[in-house]
Amino acid sequence: MAIQKPSIPKGTRDFSPAEMLRRNYIFDTIRNVFRKYGFLPIETPAMENLSTLMGKYGEEGDKLLFKILNSGDFMGKLDKNEVPTMSPGALAQKIAKRGLRYDLTVPFARYVVQHRNEINFPFKRYQIQPVWRADNPQKGRYREFFQCDVDMIGSTSLINEFELIKIIDEVFHSFSLPVIIKVNNRKVLAGISEIIGEKEKIVEITVAIDKLEKIGVEKVMEELSSRGISEKSIALLQPVFEMKGSNEEKLLFLENYLEGSDIGLKGVEELRQLSAYLASDPIASEMEIDITLARGLNYYTGAIIEVKAKDMAIGSICGGGRYDDLTGIFGLPDVSGVGISFGADRIYDVLLQSDSFPGAVKEHTQLMFVNFGEREVNYILPLLGKLRSEGVNAELYPDQAKMKKQMVYADSSHIPYVALIGDQEIKDNKITLKDMLSGEQKLVSFEEIIDQLKA
Amino acid sequence: MAIQKPSIPKGTRDFSPAEMLRRNYIFDTIRNVFRKYGFLPIETPAMENLSTLMGKYGEEGDKLLFKILNSGDFMGKLDKNEVPTMSPGALAQKIAKRGLRYDLTVPFARYVVQHRNEINFPFKRYQIQPVWRADNPQKGRYREFFQCDVDMIGSTSLINEFELIKIIDEVFHSFSLPVIIKVNNRKVLAGISEIIGEKEKIVEITVAIDKLEKIGVEKVMEELSSRGISEKSIALLQPVFEMKGSNEEKLLFLENYLEGSDIGLKGVEELRQLSAYLASDPIASEMEIDITLARGLNYYTGAIIEVKAKDMAIGSICGGGRYDDLTGIFGLPDVSGVGISFGADRIYDVLLQSDSFPGAVKEHTQLMFVNFGEREVNYILPLLGKLRSEGVNAELYPDQAKMKKQMVYADSSHIPYVALIGDQEIKDNKITLKDMLSGEQKLVSFEEIIDQLKA
Repeated sequence: MAIQKPSIPKGTRDFSPAEMLRRNYIFDTIRNVFRKYGFLPIETPAMENLSTLMGKYGEEGDKLLFKILNSGDFMGKLDKNEVPTMSPGALAQKIAKRGLRYDLTVPFARYVVQHRNEINFPFKRYQIQPVWRADNPQKGRYREFFQCDVDMIGSTSLINEFELIKIIDEVFHSFSLPVIIKVNNRKVLAGISEIIGEKEKIVEITVAIDKLEKIGVEKVMEELSSRGISEKSIALLQPVFEMKGSNEEKLLFLENYLEGSDIGLKGVEELRQLSAYLASDPIASEMEIDITLARGLNYYTGAIIEVKAKDMAIGSICGGGRYDDLTGIFGLPDVSGVGISFGADRIYDVLLQSDSFPGAVKEHTQLMFVNFGEREVNYILPLLGKLRSEGVNAELYPDQAKMKKQMVYADSSHIPYVALIGDQEIKDNKITLKDMLSGEQKLVSFEEIIDQLKA
Repeated sequence: MAIQKPSIPKGTRDFSPAEMLRRNYIFDTIRNVFRKYGFLPIETPAMENLSTLMGKYGEEGDKLLFKILNSGDFMGKLDKNEVPTMSPGALAQKIAKRGLRYDLTVPFARYVVQHRNEINFPFKRYQIQPVWRADNPQKGRYREFFQCDVDMIGSTSLINEFELIKIIDEVFHSFSLPVIIKVNNRKVLAGISEIIGEKEKIVEITVAIDKLEKIGVEKVMEELSSRGISEKSIALLQPVFEMKGSNEEKLLFLENYLEGSDIGLKGVEELRQLSAYLASDPIASEMEIDITLARGLNYYTGAIIEVKAKDMAIGSICGGGRYDDLTGIFGLPDVSGVGISFGADRIYDVLLQSDSFPGAVKEHTQLMFVNFGEREVNYILPLLGKLRSEGVNAELYPDQAKMKKQMVYADSSHIPYVALIGDQEIKDNKITLKDMLSGEQKLVSFEEIIDQLKA
């Protein structure tokens, strides 16, 4: 066989030990908070039937699905003369019946419906798995990336929204990362559309308002106009553009502005209730009511949540909201849920950029024995076994290599202690322990080493 | 959109919370042992270039690879009139350039070569990830399953083999699962072939001997004969078939039998050295030298290792060996490595079958507050926050549902304690704590609950 220059597909990554340790720190931190709040893990297969995935992410999303070629004679049942006339999409449908999951939400909806008779509702689940999208790779955007989703399904109580905000607060507090948690409510957006007399155009309106911070009032107004919103309605929106102040001031404004829209007032009431819960048990992060926040609007029916790192020019690092009919498409209507998703890859970038990863990584070897030869090895093996049975991560350099080579290995593996055992040490029943950070060496007993490393 | 009956692809599985907790117990146990022995984690992408995977698993393996359809107009560059004349394999090559990984070994070899300049050799890595094979699903065989690989690359020392046997011993000891660790050496097999005058036929001979236990001596001899091994050679093999006794007796027999074969004697010497290391630091499991053990012979060059659960009719639950040229195909020759792979799915089945999963699962909620209404909720929220900040997994039932419904939820979620706070409790600043196992209720202070649940 010819020798191949090894590479991996565009947009995918290998994770080396140093990256893995940092990534596991992120996953472990998030997972521990999920657990503390009573959420349970599930996992779904990487492959789903394309019938489960297609049509759930819009036309653009369908194109971004990785499709898996059917096994065996995948062209067998096709009229091969027809093939030249078929579009790529039509042909793909015939030769690929499975695809890689695009997110964790649709597989979760599928899971809930499929397992509805075993599930203990209200169902609090978390799921940490990779997803795949055939997107154009660019800085911070990968074709394989990890999502950490936490959802509560089968309960309409706003306590769930409160719990999710607490989870967000606790996760980022654990990361020592100051964030702003932005909160909105789809019902408020519906109310605004109603009040300005453009109830049917809620999508166009919110898509435009969503850009307020980015492009400014003038441009938003132009866009609204080009999307067929009347001048009169745009004028009625003016106070919304100008809305400022504290969350309480915003709520007061909205209560006034939305008078006459039942759905709008219901949205404000929900925001108020959420604020009240947060007053009972406050969070450390800043929470801001932001009525320009829309996200995947067609999907959400109540709360909309988005998290941004404070003082950093990076997009959303967590987001989600309430959806009232996620499982309807799979035959189980009227199940309300609320959930958020942490973007592990972006959080990784933020923590790296802000130098916020903790210094100590637990996974590393704590002590390495230098290998001076067979006689010493036979002396060391029982000690090594004893150290490990005491829970100390330890290793013996496997080859009788040059001292320098062994020390370079220990040093670049970030092993903090090296044990040297030669003739004299064996005779004296002692060990020379070298602190790799300070360079200090001292003669100690084996028991002293155990005490020091277990501490 | 039409309502779909949800399902997942054949041979794949959803993992529900109860399964996840058991699976995580397996992964965590294995991972902790890997760490203790100084191995570091890596992960590689689910997708590899097909050029990396094809030709590495034999013709049959190539067919079992899941191939990913190229994105966009995947037929664009093809002469569409030629398509009807192409074989499925040839066409697949044109329309799919990526595939899902089939095991962790080939991606690891690719990883080592690709990252050779960053790796700190000898490189001790572990990798726990799913793999995919388009195999025919059957009981215990899935199309998506998990491997836990641990390899040491860049060292020829037999200390590595010793360490892997220790790892096996410690992993299964942690599972309280008695196992037999079978060990062989490819050099011994080469020596046997040499001694009987059939050096070139080592593959045929070992494939036949491998079946000794299953089909018996007569059938093995028939098979050897049908594979072109002379009667004289088969007669010379007779003592090997009859070899019995302790490991030491087997080694003595082999030293005698293989006299005259340098490679054979080298193999015996390696087995002896491994036994000597294990004498310095003994294991709890039974280790048995088994010269019928062959596994993926063409691949291994030294030690061959396989683990079976004692007294259970289930195949190998862990296996591996030494390979001297894994990375050669990717352009890095002469890198020796040795590794083993734990089959998480089979270990799961064994532990379930033998009822060996530990009773307590850490992930569950320890305490649930019953929800009697808004007033009580506002009283509970700060307590809930305090409990969690003390590291107690706790939750509040989100809806003001009927008491019975809330208790059923707590019970089927295996939540051990339920806290009831009504008017009287608020007035007395006390909590009614119900032990869900005994059914006992008592009035306690919040501090007593913390003390009890933290303990």
